[in-house]
Amino acid sequence: VDNFKVLVCMGSSSDWNIMKDAVSILKEFSVNVDYQVLSAHRCPEEMLQMGKTAHEKGYQIIIAGAGGAAHLPGMLASASPLPVIGVPIKATHLDGMDSLLSIVQMPKGVPVATVGINKANNAALLAVKILATQSDPLRDKIIQYKAELKKKSHAQQSDLIF
Amino acid sequence: VDNFKVLVCMGSSSDWNIMKDAVSILKEFSVNVDYQVLSAHRCPEEMLQMGKTAHEKGYQIIIAGAGGAAHLPGMLASASPLPVIGVPIKATHLDGMDSLLSIVQMPKGVPVATVGINKANNAALLAVKILATQSDPLRDKIIQYKAELKKKSHAQQSDLIF
Amino acid sequence: VDNFKVLVCMGSSSDWNIMKDAVSILKEFSVNVDYQVLSAHRCPEEMLQMGKTAHEKGYQIIIAGAGGAAHLPGMLASASPLPVIGVPIKATHLDGMDSLLSIVQMPKGVPVATVGINKANNAALLAVKILATQSDPLRDKIIQYKAELKKKSHAQQSDLIF
Amino acid sequence: VDNFKVLVCMGSSSDWNIMKDAVSILKEFSVNVDYQVLSAHRCPEEMLQMGKTAHEKGYQIIIAGAGGAAHLPGMLASASPLPVIGVPIKATHLDGMDSLLSIVQMPKGVPVATVGINKANNAALLAVKILATQSDPLRDKIIQYKAELKKKSHAQQSDLIF
Amino acid sequence: VDNFKVLVCMGSSSDWNIMKDAVSILKEFSVNVDYQVLSAHRCPEEMLQMGKTAHEKGYQIIIAGAGGAAHLPGMLASASPLPVIGVPIKATHLDGMDSLLSIVQMPKGVPVATVGINKANNAALLAVKILATQSDPLRDKIIQYKAELKKKSHAQQSDLIF
Amino acid sequence: VDNFKVLVCMGSSSDWNIMKDAVSILKEFSVNVDYQVLSAHRCPEEMLQMGKTAHEKGYQIIIAGAGGAAHLPGMLASASPLPVIGVPIKATHLDGMDSLLSIVQMPKGVPVATVGINKANNAALLAVKILATQSDPLRDKIIQYKAELKKKSHAQQSDLIF
Amino acid sequence: VDNFKVLVCMGSSSDWNIMKDAVSILKEFSVNVDYQVLSAHRCPEEMLQMGKTAHEKGYQIIIAGAGGAAHLPGMLASASPLPVIGVPIKATHLDGMDSLLSIVQMPKGVPVATVGINKANNAALLAVKILATQSDPLRDKIIQYKAELKKKSHAQQSDLIF
Amino acid sequence: VDNFKVLVCMGSSSDWNIMKDAVSILKEFSVNVDYQVLSAHRCPEEMLQMGKTAHEKGYQIIIAGAGGAAHLPGMLASASPLPVIGVPIKATHLDGMDSLLSIVQMPKGVPVATVGINKANNAALLAVKILATQSDPLRDKIIQYKAELKKKSHAQQSDLIF
Repeated sequence: VDNFKVLVCMGSSSDWNIMKDAVSILKEFSVNVDYQVLSAHRCPEEMLQMGKTAHEKGYQIIIAGAGGAAHLPGMLASASPLPVIGVPIKATHLDGMDSLLSIVQMPKGVPVATVGINKANNAALLAVKILATQSDPLRDKIIQYKAELKKKSHAQQSDLIF
Repeated sequence: VDNFKVLVCMGSSSDWNIMKDAVSILKEFSVNVDYQVLSAHRCPEEMLQMGKTAHEKGYQIIIAGAGGAAHLPGMLASASPLPVIGVPIKATHLDGMDSLLSIVQMPKGVPVATVGINKANNAALLAVKILATQSDPLRDKIIQYKAELKKKSHAQQSDLIF
Repeated sequence: VDNFKVLVCMGSSSDWNIMKDAVSILKEFSVNVDYQVLSAHRCPEEMLQMGKTAHEKGYQIIIAGAGGAAHLPGMLASASPLPVIGVPIKATHLDGMDSLLSIVQMPKGVPVATVGINKANNAALLAVKILATQSDPLRDKIIQYKAELKKKSHAQQSDLIF
Repeated sequence: VDNFKVLVCMGSSSDWNIMKDAVSILKEFSVNVDYQVLSAHRCPEEMLQMGKTAHEKGYQIIIAGAGGAAHLPGMLASASPLPVIGVPIKATHLDGMDSLLSIVQMPKGVPVATVGINKANNAALLAVKILATQSDPLRDKIIQYKAELKKKSHAQQSDLIF
Repeated sequence: VDNFKVLVCMGSSSDWNIMKDAVSILKEFSVNVDYQVLSAHRCPEEMLQMGKTAHEKGYQIIIAGAGGAAHLPGMLASASPLPVIGVPIKATHLDGMDSLLSIVQMPKGVPVATVGINKANNAALLAVKILATQSDPLRDKIIQYKAELKKKSHAQQSDLIF
Repeated sequence: VDNFKVLVCMGSSSDWNIMKDAVSILKEFSVNVDYQVLSAHRCPEEMLQMGKTAHEKGYQIIIAGAGGAAHLPGMLASASPLPVIGVPIKATHLDGMDSLLSIVQMPKGVPVATVGINKANNAALLAVKILATQSDPLRDKIIQYKAELKKKSHAQQSDLIF
Repeated sequence: VDNFKVLVCMGSSSDWNIMKDAVSILKEFSVNVDYQVLSAHRCPEEMLQMGKTAHEKGYQIIIAGAGGAAHLPGMLASASPLPVIGVPIKATHLDGMDSLLSIVQMPKGVPVATVGINKANNAALLAVKILATQSDPLRDKIIQYKAELKKKSHAQQSDLIF
Repeated sequence: VDNFKVLVCMGSSSDWNIMKDAVSILKEFSVNVDYQVLSAHRCPEEMLQMGKTAHEKGYQIIIAGAGGAAHLPGMLASASPLPVIGVPIKATHLDGMDSLLSIVQMPKGVPVATVGINKANNAALLAVKILATQSDPLRDKIIQYKAELKKKSHAQQSDLIF
């Protein structure tokens, strides 16, 4: 898995509290990860440049989190041949519905793989599942991860104290 | 008003049916207008280049219409020192609510002047009001336009046939 | 920029906590600003009178914030030839969606330049961008402001502590 | 009931198709009714003047229909001591939700009696119920009207053909 | 105003915190008021009985507050020839949108005069405005109340401390 | 199954087009069914009387369909010890969301078993599933019905003509 | 009532705080109840197996609570001939609207009896009402329970302290 | 690209009209594709079995479209180590919002890569982008596809006939 590398980026450092979950998961699966603030609205040219060149820098996948009028995932998807996973982040109002619609409702030709509101962890798991399509060891880890989810779910039974 | 020039752009030619209302209004006020398809998602670099240089090309205002995950107005606003007026266009689903939220909920530092769903005509009138802040003849035209709106409103009374 | 003057008004002093951000930004750009409570529902005649005369009092732009059934921006826009920027303020319920729709969905002929929920700061920046269409020094300040936004965005990178 | 008079007004003649239902109902109950186009956004001063003087002109109740950023009912309520009944009219988008919120979410001190979307008939019935609080004959008519509703409801049973 | 009497009822005592505002306002205008818990879902027959007889008990108006699937106002309106004012109360979820739609979207023939979410005070003011259609002293009080609202609005200016 | 009987009722004959699906399904399962118009708002007392006595009339289940401020299911549930299944019917606006919330958001103590918008067929299937808890032959029919659904689903494969 | 048994299950132990209300109510009515964590997404096969066999294990009804993309109730309904009652649980965002729609909008053929957001108590009462269709003693308890609700509602009157 | 294979499945043949767009795009990129009706609610066991074994059958990616309470994508994601791309399909009501929330709001551990409402074409393009992470020729095709999108966007300019 050494040759896998994922870019986790976000519109603002205020998104870090959510987006670091993605980094944790990727590290848990031993996937290389870089993370950075990359604002579509404050650094549009760098953002576009990153989109255009990310695949040349060795990234296989881009995970992008943003809130409100969340343009970052869609703009990276427009510039990059890589799959872009978008994380709608709940900003100050509307409980993340604005971010969700801004990210998921992309026009024909420019998809963003959208996960649930604030679900950066799921964005990372999706990235791992994508990488696992070309790595049997990673697929095995995914299958094992699922087995552990199941075990934890069983263990929750003991929390049901009436 | 000869030195005024507004750029009307839209994400796709399918938006033209709505956006040409903006061109009509601007022509009605004798404001120079250029119009073009400029897709944030299909031509991001040209789009950004236009954003960066529009003020150097003699434009005072950009009007941008887009539907769905409507990134065009916000991305132009991120690149340009000009005021950008955004027109949320009803795409195939959600009755324009996705476009509205994608355009209006911009982060601190990068405003888009958003008008109502499909209200390209109002975007143009807002542009004229903006230009009129530096042109007394244009302001007079605005005042006259309002007087005509009032007259037409009065005339509607005769349509109320019971 | 000495001849520029913006009116910031709001439906109630309870909106001041949000609306003073607009005043801060305008002062930061050395734009003259007056601010006042001006209730469409409690002082409709004064409000309309202000709308009708604001341009004669030397204002170029009106910024109006209101919550709930937020009529202030639209009513000022109906009375004034000036561009009116509306700030939807989150009132007690519905997270500002009521204010947003009441402000943005104006009928043909009477536009309000709507910004995001509680985004009084962006209303002021939009006002500055509008004024900058007739002032090269102000445009330069805008360009510089954008450069600083970019710098701050870069600086946020150091906040990403894993 | 000869001294009762209701004003039915609407923002545009395009609302007449809905609002004439209110006129029909009022006539059915032999309540005097005037109806007119009265645009909050195109004729704000006349509108306010009407609001201020309607009670002096012999009206007991104002019914106001409007769509989109529907300010007419609220502005009349702000100007008039009379009860104002608001009819949210479905405009082009959002299925009347914008009109509903613009009308119903009025601030403390300035109520609008809001009925369902496009329910001008119910606005008129509400007006009749209000007038009936001071007229026993009108109350009897209301009670009779309810009895007829019940009878018609019973009669619908024969429409259930399986 | 001695012969005026308003019934304020609510689905549960948990609504009292909101609904007592209605009682306060009515007392402020010296309108007689009774208030009671009257649950459409727990005491449907009493509720209907009250609806049927309220006008015989000397009430001119019913104000009814309810949350969630808020059936109380509509059911009283179905039973009573009196005008019913409905107050949508924010229950545990959905920020009052469920209550608002359950109250305002009544079918043809059975209107409820709906006010804003949790706006029991406005329900009472609407009741006073309704009663004032048959009482000049009450109308004068309404006009005076509006003048005080205006004065208070002016006074808020001093709260705008930058 | 001869002793099973279900009451299908609806607020208006305009709901019949949807509600007859429920009757069809019940007949398909040889469950006795009566159907009638029963308006909560136009015949509240009969409606309540039916709620109170339905179980004495031999009904095991009530299915109630209504649109807009859909009070029928909840009011029947308040009066009856029987399980009430509510069908939110799309009325003129808001695509059935108003009906759904009016039916499903019932207060503690008075549940309504809500099915999807316009899904009268599912209401009937739910009724059959409920009756099947006390009838092995009916349970077998349900199991067979599910087997046929599966078969039909398989058969759809041949419709996928590329 | 000894032969009645209800299964209460939930997607995660974090739902227990809500779902235990269902257990309380069932015990209050002396209905046997088992409860368990049963995740559609983490243990899909066990979940399906439970759905397929619950009726053989002596359960008459399944109550299932889940939040977000709440698939548990619908998947159990797809596998089981038993009536399934779904409880939409408010997860982290969107105030339970996502859970509600995921549970209630089931396709033709596979109904879920949906109750209000977080209303596990009502799910249990619905289960009791369903069981009472085959038990006169249970029906009597339901009628008595309703009588107590009425009594408590009356008692709330004393809480209205002005 | 011969060893790439994608499974396109859908809840019902009524989704085919949308989902065949995915098949078209995949064929356009010479990616092998199988397509089938696979109902989570009508054939839950086959569906789960397919989820569990799809990776063994040589699929790299699953694309699943569903409407209403759209459980198919999430259930497949729960069973499969493969990345699952979900297409929310507009069913009869709510304009696809129910499908969108049912698909995107998955719990931690079980991501679905969600695309826009009815955007099966984008689901396929996302699949191609994912496969391209392990195929330089496919990446080149993606880059070429983007170039053609740009060209088509330019060509639309000639459609703007004023």
